[in-house]
Amino acid sequence: MSETKRTTLPNARTTPRFAGPCTFCRYPLLELVESEHLPVDWAIYGAPFDSGVTYRPGTRFGPRAIRDASQYVKPYSIPHDIDITEALSLADAGDAPVNPFDCKQNAERIYEFARDLPDPDHTRLMAIGGDHSIAYANIRATWERRGKPEGGLPLIHFDSHLDTVDMTLGEKWSHASPFIRAVEGGFIDPKRMLSVGIKGPLNTKTDLAYAKEHGVTIVTYEQFQAEGTRTIDAFVNELGEEPCYLTFDIDVIDPAYAPGTGTPSMGGITSAEAFALLRRLAGIEVVGADVVEVLPDRDVAQNTALLAGHIMFEILCLDAVRRRDR
Amino acid sequence: MSETKRTTLPNARTTPRFAGPCTFCRYPLLELVESEHLPVDWAIYGAPFDSGVTYRPGTRFGPRAIRDASQYVKPYSIPHDIDITEALSLADAGDAPVNPFDCKQNAERIYEFARDLPDPDHTRLMAIGGDHSIAYANIRATWERRGKPEGGLPLIHFDSHLDTVDMTLGEKWSHASPFIRAVEGGFIDPKRMLSVGIKGPLNTKTDLAYAKEHGVTIVTYEQFQAEGTRTIDAFVNELGEEPCYLTFDIDVIDPAYAPGTGTPSMGGITSAEAFALLRRLAGIEVVGADVVEVLPDRDVAQNTALLAGHIMFEILCLDAVRRRDR
Amino acid sequence: MSETKRTTLPNARTTPRFAGPCTFCRYPLLELVESEHLPVDWAIYGAPFDSGVTYRPGTRFGPRAIRDASQYVKPYSIPHDIDITEALSLADAGDAPVNPFDCKQNAERIYEFARDLPDPDHTRLMAIGGDHSIAYANIRATWERRGKPEGGLPLIHFDSHLDTVDMTLGEKWSHASPFIRAVEGGFIDPKRMLSVGIKGPLNTKTDLAYAKEHGVTIVTYEQFQAEGTRTIDAFVNELGEEPCYLTFDIDVIDPAYAPGTGTPSMGGITSAEAFALLRRLAGIEVVGADVVEVLPDRDVAQNTALLAGHIMFEILCLDAVRRRDR
Amino acid sequence: MSETKRTTLPNARTTPRFAGPCTFCRYPLLELVESEHLPVDWAIYGAPFDSGVTYRPGTRFGPRAIRDASQYVKPYSIPHDIDITEALSLADAGDAPVNPFDCKQNAERIYEFARDLPDPDHTRLMAIGGDHSIAYANIRATWERRGKPEGGLPLIHFDSHLDTVDMTLGEKWSHASPFIRAVEGGFIDPKRMLSVGIKGPLNTKTDLAYAKEHGVTIVTYEQFQAEGTRTIDAFVNELGEEPCYLTFDIDVIDPAYAPGTGTPSMGGITSAEAFALLRRLAGIEVVGADVVEVLPDRDVAQNTALLAGHIMFEILCLDAVRRRDR
Amino acid sequence: MSETKRTTLPNARTTPRFAGPCTFCRYPLLELVESEHLPVDWAIYGAPFDSGVTYRPGTRFGPRAIRDASQYVKPYSIPHDIDITEALSLADAGDAPVNPFDCKQNAERIYEFARDLPDPDHTRLMAIGGDHSIAYANIRATWERRGKPEGGLPLIHFDSHLDTVDMTLGEKWSHASPFIRAVEGGFIDPKRMLSVGIKGPLNTKTDLAYAKEHGVTIVTYEQFQAEGTRTIDAFVNELGEEPCYLTFDIDVIDPAYAPGTGTPSMGGITSAEAFALLRRLAGIEVVGADVVEVLPDRDVAQNTALLAGHIMFEILCLDAVRRRDR
Amino acid sequence: MSETKRTTLPNARTTPRFAGPCTFCRYPLLELVESEHLPVDWAIYGAPFDSGVTYRPGTRFGPRAIRDASQYVKPYSIPHDIDITEALSLADAGDAPVNPFDCKQNAERIYEFARDLPDPDHTRLMAIGGDHSIAYANIRATWERRGKPEGGLPLIHFDSHLDTVDMTLGEKWSHASPFIRAVEGGFIDPKRMLSVGIKGPLNTKTDLAYAKEHGVTIVTYEQFQAEGTRTIDAFVNELGEEPCYLTFDIDVIDPAYAPGTGTPSMGGITSAEAFALLRRLAGIEVVGADVVEVLPDRDVAQNTALLAGHIMFEILCLDAVRRRDR
Repeated sequence: MSETKRTTLPNARTTPRFAGPCTFCRYPLLELVESEHLPVDWAIYGAPFDSGVTYRPGTRFGPRAIRDASQYVKPYSIPHDIDITEALSLADAGDAPVNPFDCKQNAERIYEFARDLPDPDHTRLMAIGGDHSIAYANIRATWERRGKPEGGLPLIHFDSHLDTVDMTLGEKWSHASPFIRAVEGGFIDPKRMLSVGIKGPLNTKTDLAYAKEHGVTIVTYEQFQAEGTRTIDAFVNELGEEPCYLTFDIDVIDPAYAPGTGTPSMGGITSAEAFALLRRLAGIEVVGADVVEVLPDRDVAQNTALLAGHIMFEILCLDAVRRRDR
Repeated sequence: MSETKRTTLPNARTTPRFAGPCTFCRYPLLELVESEHLPVDWAIYGAPFDSGVTYRPGTRFGPRAIRDASQYVKPYSIPHDIDITEALSLADAGDAPVNPFDCKQNAERIYEFARDLPDPDHTRLMAIGGDHSIAYANIRATWERRGKPEGGLPLIHFDSHLDTVDMTLGEKWSHASPFIRAVEGGFIDPKRMLSVGIKGPLNTKTDLAYAKEHGVTIVTYEQFQAEGTRTIDAFVNELGEEPCYLTFDIDVIDPAYAPGTGTPSMGGITSAEAFALLRRLAGIEVVGADVVEVLPDRDVAQNTALLAGHIMFEILCLDAVRRRDR
Repeated sequence: MSETKRTTLPNARTTPRFAGPCTFCRYPLLELVESEHLPVDWAIYGAPFDSGVTYRPGTRFGPRAIRDASQYVKPYSIPHDIDITEALSLADAGDAPVNPFDCKQNAERIYEFARDLPDPDHTRLMAIGGDHSIAYANIRATWERRGKPEGGLPLIHFDSHLDTVDMTLGEKWSHASPFIRAVEGGFIDPKRMLSVGIKGPLNTKTDLAYAKEHGVTIVTYEQFQAEGTRTIDAFVNELGEEPCYLTFDIDVIDPAYAPGTGTPSMGGITSAEAFALLRRLAGIEVVGADVVEVLPDRDVAQNTALLAGHIMFEILCLDAVRRRDR
Repeated sequence: MSETKRTTLPNARTTPRFAGPCTFCRYPLLELVESEHLPVDWAIYGAPFDSGVTYRPGTRFGPRAIRDASQYVKPYSIPHDIDITEALSLADAGDAPVNPFDCKQNAERIYEFARDLPDPDHTRLMAIGGDHSIAYANIRATWERRGKPEGGLPLIHFDSHLDTVDMTLGEKWSHASPFIRAVEGGFIDPKRMLSVGIKGPLNTKTDLAYAKEHGVTIVTYEQFQAEGTRTIDAFVNELGEEPCYLTFDIDVIDPAYAPGTGTPSMGGITSAEAFALLRRLAGIEVVGADVVEVLPDRDVAQNTALLAGHIMFEILCLDAVRRRDR
Repeated sequence: MSETKRTTLPNARTTPRFAGPCTFCRYPLLELVESEHLPVDWAIYGAPFDSGVTYRPGTRFGPRAIRDASQYVKPYSIPHDIDITEALSLADAGDAPVNPFDCKQNAERIYEFARDLPDPDHTRLMAIGGDHSIAYANIRATWERRGKPEGGLPLIHFDSHLDTVDMTLGEKWSHASPFIRAVEGGFIDPKRMLSVGIKGPLNTKTDLAYAKEHGVTIVTYEQFQAEGTRTIDAFVNELGEEPCYLTFDIDVIDPAYAPGTGTPSMGGITSAEAFALLRRLAGIEVVGADVVEVLPDRDVAQNTALLAGHIMFEILCLDAVRRRDR
Repeated sequence: MSETKRTTLPNARTTPRFAGPCTFCRYPLLELVESEHLPVDWAIYGAPFDSGVTYRPGTRFGPRAIRDASQYVKPYSIPHDIDITEALSLADAGDAPVNPFDCKQNAERIYEFARDLPDPDHTRLMAIGGDHSIAYANIRATWERRGKPEGGLPLIHFDSHLDTVDMTLGEKWSHASPFIRAVEGGFIDPKRMLSVGIKGPLNTKTDLAYAKEHGVTIVTYEQFQAEGTRTIDAFVNELGEEPCYLTFDIDVIDPAYAPGTGTPSMGGITSAEAFALLRRLAGIEVVGADVVEVLPDRDVAQNTALLAGHIMFEILCLDAVRRRDR
């Protein structure tokens, strides 16, 4: 991709960050980009759905809040020494259609929207939640746009919760179940699934069973504190350059840093640890991603929404670095 | 009912209002009351459901917040000169079971819970929301416990919205539709339905059509400002002593007074006007009621939850006054 | 008092309201005023005490919050056509000493502080709460500085509550009891006491008994809505120019306007109605006053603290107008 | 204008209000409208500037917050019986460029942006603040696009403050001065200027002098309470159908209703009174307008931003009604 | 204790966490448990008292807020591999009676309530504050129910403050003094007292004197950062299996994690560090405990109340592990 | 300086921290100190200016909020074993005059105020912001009062941002530029400038150029995580006892700890790390300092303002320790 064929941001030295269109990190709207026939490396879209929650709702307002707060996310990474807007062509694809009254139909609707975004061979998908149930839709669309790889995609999963409960309150489609459903669909490969930051207390000991039986690599918070990135490094090493999907539940970060979420889990990683963990993944090829569970009504100083914008930035850095370094 | 057979409150002169069990307005728990074989005039229960909303969710936490704030609701009314805990035997019946994933099934579940509360001939039902969709369930249960009166119950309805939309976002069961569903079920009589406080802007002019075609008496906020209680008085006069149902959506009150709600409608009645309107109904026989749409996450100083407690109190006063004056 | 002998404010056209010393309404500190040998018409002091509350504490931070918010209170009244800083010499006398562990000893301590403020023949006292129990101390000091008038001072009382409970939770000294204690001390005359804005619900009907038996004139909120200022005007007319004390509990104003208070009472007068009521008192001679029950932790947008500053201003206007018009 | 040549809104029955592009009241973006060659009756743009304030800054985030909250503003008015999106073609023109470091240059910059918006003969301008200093720019642009009418435009002004201070803290360009500057420029006619809702306390009595000397019609809040709309009706009657400009400072509404503002003035009109006052203007021809001084950081439950959206709606109704009724 | 003789929780898979009775961590009410003649290992009660504070009051609402937030505390610990509701029989014993007007009498009253809870030989006591002064009462009751062990109980104390001030503002009974009073009463043994997390700045250097003179082992925050758990491990090792009391002041945790407290001390341990420290105590026998100083009005995102619930859980884990491993 | 010639604090054992004059950390007002002819080691003044910001304004209220919160800052440091009020004579010098409409003139005005504070040979200056642009003024005044040392003062700089941008939005004077302007003026020496805590993302890679070209020692957050205090220790060692200036931007601390700031940068040091870093500087001679960028409207639980008070305390400790140890 030549330099002249990238999307660009408004110049923060002439258009202040409190003014102008309010898109994800100030990336241009996909519909405006399309009229200029620019290629798009990542289409980032909102998935404003929260009817899959088991506790506190409100993440349907997540995409809007993240667009708002992410006006202050800048493009140059000091640790990676890269400007992602120079390395990547990025666009805000708007919001997927949702059905707030039916979790399964909603997953279908978002999946179709994501699947049909232009240029499936080239453009990668990042979904911004919404609750974690929407990950299913983006994973499925990514898998399909990548040619339905057999065995499913490897999955790197940051979360306090495993989200592999088969049924909750009588329902198989909720934010407790996206990965069990995605495994059943063949979209992800549980044996190449890494869940980082899992912590208790849990409802019952059996909540760990599914992951263990299906070969998921779990790094609990306590394990991470004790061993550092040993297991993670091994997983990444094993993975190599194989295309994978990355799902980031903001509740993996301690509620002191990310209060705006619906099922807060006390005692987690810090923002700085989250950034360091993501940077440590440099070398992998992320072909799809999501950042979920930001709940603006609990986000007392809007830190969580801004943090989500930074997480998005760090994920995009991984792709920018890969392209530079390959 | 003899004086010795009433439920009682903890003495606020010995148990301070910030201590002790946290039930609606400090009324005793129904299960404790039952073990003492006391009659119960009103069973008040929570309906923690909000998956019927079209905009902002969160009212599932309404019952809990109202229990909390209503610790400061006292029992003696100066204008009515009556102490409702001397006139009525009251109990907190806990929360109805809910299904947060299916609005129709949820309505069924709450209806069954309410229908099966003890002593159907004597005990009246007050449901505390939750979104307005739960009114359907309590109306239906009330209608059934009252012997399924033909033509349905008269309905007095305080709200900014008519809630008679047939379908929203592809769904017939939501907080936009409880009364169209209740009319269809024969549980309420639209010709004896009074909707007070309706105001715009509306989605379309046609949103008024159903109510007008079915004979609902509408008193818009602007009409109320212009004519006062003229239409309301006429309706009440016509109604006489016929048993009726009262549904109170907190968003009928201006958001300055009741910020904690999901579809706030600017420019409404004040708290004092709401109390005065309810007191003006004195003489009617309320056989079932609900207070809905309190959303704690938006309730910045907890005024809305406390206000809901006062609305509950004023509704109960109507029954206390009727018993005294008949 | 000659023009050259008044205290003055910083010029808001050169020292912005967000800068400089943070005293009540920007009036100078009494200790600085004293060194200039200026007369002081009103010494305004904080009474940061809240251990007399029966429900929610926190008004100990009231004086500080009111100083902060009142930086935006300006000195010229359009309706009275008077600039109070031209008519009066005003000073912030700092905070009274308090005893947060003993309500009775605290009252003693504040009383002594207030009694001993300089120039008792000339300087009038305004106490800023703190909870309503501190009114007792300021009333007693005012009464003593005025020469201990027999029968006690007349009292004009704005409040949602009567505050004439003999004993609460085993205690005779609390914010429920200041006026019963002041009557017992002979500092106020219950027959010339006017309580405006009283409203329910009450704990019991008997809470009204003391006031009724002792001849207090009560104007409930509902009565005010019905009759306007009829009873108030009659009381003021009867009072004439007799020196009186004015006590203003911020909870008389509806919680939509004044959320920052500890025992909020739903359905009250508006800010504008409060100002109008105070202006209507023009002609009376206020010789002491207090503004109480501002609780900053509940004051979500700091409206209550600013409102308290305006109430202070309106009370001072009464004295400014009296001096001009006599 | 034919029906087929209007801009349209997303259907709230298929795209929920918490999803999709976040423009003022969901009106389409001007740049998208232009590509469809639609006429535009009103171009509504943000003016995110707050460096003209004398007290609390933050209104630079006003346009963004109002776009967010106004997703819930619907298009059909019951009192006017009109759907403004059927009567008018409306567009969100984005944000004007600003200079946060220089109030005068900023006014110039916004003026040029507004002046140069397409189709000056047809398209009317509504500016959304930002602080009140931005009104100068929109008034000047409106005046110029209307052919620079001699004597300036009549002005209808809702505000707690007159905003005719010549100089503040050494500066002639601030939110205290837009109208004195606009009179000096000949853009507005002070003799046909109506200021509604003015209230004290003021810094000095002389703050009223400019307006009185230049023939401004002032209706203070107290005057409005006493006489109702008498003076306003007379002004409107006199004005007839002459094109005029309408400027609405949200602080004219009581802080209980509109806490999110920088110079809150206690004791004002309610939201309902504001709507009624605007509706009473029906018959006038508004050719330019602004809504200013919304400060999101103080807007504890986002009521102020939503209220601003409703005010915008009521102003647009005036134009819709005029077109229907002429 | 056989499996069939334990208390049980509502099933979170059928009764959602936002519904149903709101007891500590959803443990059953003691009065309901008693009617089933179940043994109770821990009676957990609220102590809603805050009149012992020297700075910011409001912890009287702590028990209620913790009950609310702790609905989301689950029972299975991954690090301990134990489900506490399978290992222990737990009950919510309601709130102790309090005297908000007298700190010493209040301590007496809570002590009597705790002492008289059923089954003193078996049931252990956990008190939930309230300010730290209430620890005295629970320590004394625990000591008495354990047969008044000579020399007093060992004490493990997490706190930013030593709470061994003899007198504050003229008062010997306050939240600054519980441990000096408990030592005087012979209920705790200062030579076997460990204070973890102490940090400055202090009022004076002499504030350390009492603890040092009486043999208290102090681990300041800075010492903990430097040496880790060395001193703590040695203390625990020395203690062995001797029954001890554990008191946890939430302000030991940094205010970023626990903002809802009255005397916040900047620069403390994280939530994760607190959990790890508590888990490291595994092996000791805790026979009484308290968690205090949660102040809901400052708890901006309710993190502090939820954190308190997790601390309660970790303390109960210690007893569950001891029973399993002995 | 003899013991009798120090300023003193109110005794917190008799005047509670919620009462009395509200100065920085309860230090006496300079004007009262002067009348007692006491020497002053540090004059601490507010600089309530925020018109230099490029994103979110509001720090003009910083000094007031820090005065308020810092009432709870105590004087004895455990790690340093020193009571700063015994070692230093401290005073609150009030607020500098500001010009909110012109960043350059404002810098001039604050500079003149600071320069002219009494006793320039002895009294050191600490400025409390306000935005970081005010550092220029205090640096310049300090440099001048110290005899205009050639080459400028060494600078120790804690910040997330370098603040060496030449021009922003067309303006050379803003909070992005204080150090480039101070270098140009010769007041600081970039070769002896240490910037700790810098982190990205940045606008462009070139934002690092100025610092690198002028020899600034940068320790990014990531570098600090990797190497600890190695570079910092080397710088301090090199510096020796040479008089230096210390500037502390609160946004160097992670927003979880310091949410109240205008350009929050995710992933930073903790409060405890900040304290440890400052303590590690012990041995240097600080002759001027500032603490800036506290924005109260975003400071949800007032933690940031209290934290700023602690930072002030730690900086003053450095001077107290130096005097003791020299």
